Amino acid sequence: MKNLNSEQDFLALIDTYFPSINGHVTLGRGDDCSILRTNEELCISKDLFLEDVHFRRSYFSPADIGYKSLAVNISDIAAMGGVPKGFALGLIVPPELDESYWDSLLKEMAELANRHGLILAGGDLCKGASLGISVTVWGEPFQNPKQNSGSKGKFLTRGNAKPGDILFIHGSLGLARTGMLMLEKDEPSECKTYPASVQAHLRPQIRIETGNALSTFPSVTGLMDLSDGLARDLPRFINCCETAFGAEISLSEALLHSEVIRFAETNGILPEEHAFQGGEDYALFGAASADGFDELMNTVKGIVPIGVLTDRPEILLNGKKYSEKGFDHFSG
Amino acid sequence: MKNLNSEQDFLALIDTYFPSINGHVTLGRGDDCSILRTNEELCISKDLFLEDVHFRRSYFSPADIGYKSLAVNISDIAAMGGVPKGFALGLIVPPELDESYWDSLLKEMAELANRHGLILAGGDLCKGASLGISVTVWGEPFQNPKQNSGSKGKFLTRGNAKPGDILFIHGSLGLARTGMLMLEKDEPSECKTYPASVQAHLRPQIRIETGNALSTFPSVTGLMDLSDGLARDLPRFINCCETAFGAEISLSEALLHSEVIRFAETNGILPEEHAFQGGEDYALFGAASADGFDELMNTVKGIVPIGVLTDRPEILLNGKKYSEKGFDHFSG
Repeated sequence: MKNLNSEQDFLALIDTYFPSINGHVTLGRGDDCSILRTNEELCISKDLFLEDVHFRRSYFSPADIGYKSLAVNISDIAAMGGVPKGFALGLIVPPELDESYWDSLLKEMAELANRHGLILAGGDLCKGASLGISVTVWGEPFQNPKQNSGSKGKFLTRGNAKPGDILFIHGSLGLARTGMLMLEKDEPSECKTYPASVQAHLRPQIRIETGNALSTFPSVTGLMDLSDGLARDLPRFINCCETAFGAEISLSEALLHSEVIRFAETNGILPEEHAFQGGEDYALFGAASADGFDELMNTVKGIVPIGVLTDRPEILLNGKKYSEKGFDHFSG
Repeated sequence: MKNLNSEQDFLALIDTYFPSINGHVTLGRGDDCSILRTNEELCISKDLFLEDVHFRRSYFSPADIGYKSLAVNISDIAAMGGVPKGFALGLIVPPELDESYWDSLLKEMAELANRHGLILAGGDLCKGASLGISVTVWGEPFQNPKQNSGSKGKFLTRGNAKPGDILFIHGSLGLARTGMLMLEKDEPSECKTYPASVQAHLRPQIRIETGNALSTFPSVTGLMDLSDGLARDLPRFINCCETAFGAEISLSEALLHSEVIRFAETNGILPEEHAFQGGEDYALFGAASADGFDELMNTVKGIVPIGVLTDRPEILLNGKKYSEKGFDHFSG
């Protein structure tokens, strides 16, 4: 249980788990900058992951923190249809965490990075009062290795969906929020009765393969990941379109996880509205032209239609107008 | 003096000062990722800038914080000889800072960014107990616009310097540390007698043009920026070389700023050793082959030779062996 007494100790621990160079990063950690070999386009994103803002150490293991801090960033690359290539890491290190804590955290982060061929290309360490992880991640457009140059994917942005387009999801709605609400109650025995929800909050799935597959379909007109819940993210998706569009969303209990339904019923709320509120599901949410949607569904497993984009600037959930806002990490 | 009550207010303030797209960033802020148009190579760096670790709000104005948080990152691009192209920004926002504070901070950051043609390509906001700024910055190799393709610069890394190479600096040594030590004394009247030192700590100069010029000289064998002081950074520069080299450094009072000499004498330390310790000067430090060094000095204004790389693994300062370490932001 020894402590990491210097920056050198810490960097040596990082070197244990993270390779320094590969075909993409030609100069690795330790210089003023890393050097990337790039093609025509790169997509890039940056997310902070801070103790008591985005996670609590009371119920996130160090491995969970290592996983989720990188996963939520990789999810932004999935939401572009891209292939993650590398990341830079800033760590804010509180004094009380020992080497075994960091070993678990970094090991799990490295496993996730290596699984996706993602290389750690530099970063920064400093002390602070509470644990914080700052990740910048980047990726390239997908190129189907099985096909010729015509099958190169395009980055999937938010501005191109049109009225009549089918809205779809890939992943659960409301499951991670259910898990977060259970974990915040701090009653471990109750959490045990919501295992999938807790898992969804601690270890969100990332959907690179799905994003990559979608990026090769010209009929897909937009994609994002649901980090703040459909209630908050849907207006963002729609407002990126040229005019103020709206949406008709249909959620039935058949679409929802049984734990989401049970939680909602126990707490006297409608399961569909709880799922719509959601938050931190990191499901993919997108739009595609109705023409050819059956082919899309047959090709990309797990795609579920949940509604349609309309030319009226209002959002209907199961026929009811919806104006309530999902949670905002920033306000309140 | 109104407060920023929502993420939307904050993003709108950012949009006031930072353009969203240019020739390099083809998809700006507001999507899951930004999209960059890239060439063959990119260099990338990431630094945290945290309250009470890297700066204090008691003596850094919001404009100083906006400047320095980005400047120390741009300095890493200068140290590669690169041209800064874009950056991503993570802000940790304490509740007590009002809109006028952020307005000053972001305005100054934007002025620095715009002066260097640097575009803000996305980021993240969240609340926290103390102010924190996380910047990821990237750049491209320099291409001399006045000359043909043969004059393209190369990224200047640390691994190639050889015994016999001249070691040189561009910028002051010890001035920023003098300023920091004066500011930490919290005696405003004394600070007034060290104006250049205080300025060097609050507003370090960045040296993009110098780095760019150096990047076109084949005789330059390495470059870095001095963030932790020559005493700590010199061993890093040398250890990057294939074998354990050493250095003979000569610093005379003629090389030092009068405030550095005055501070050292007032505090009973040798001015050269105070300058050698340094810290946060963000001077450029590099190596070049002795052959052609005069031409280098005549072409790149402000280059000052301060020693030579040797094949003995020891560091001599004015003939005395130096083993003491400079300060470490991480330890202690």
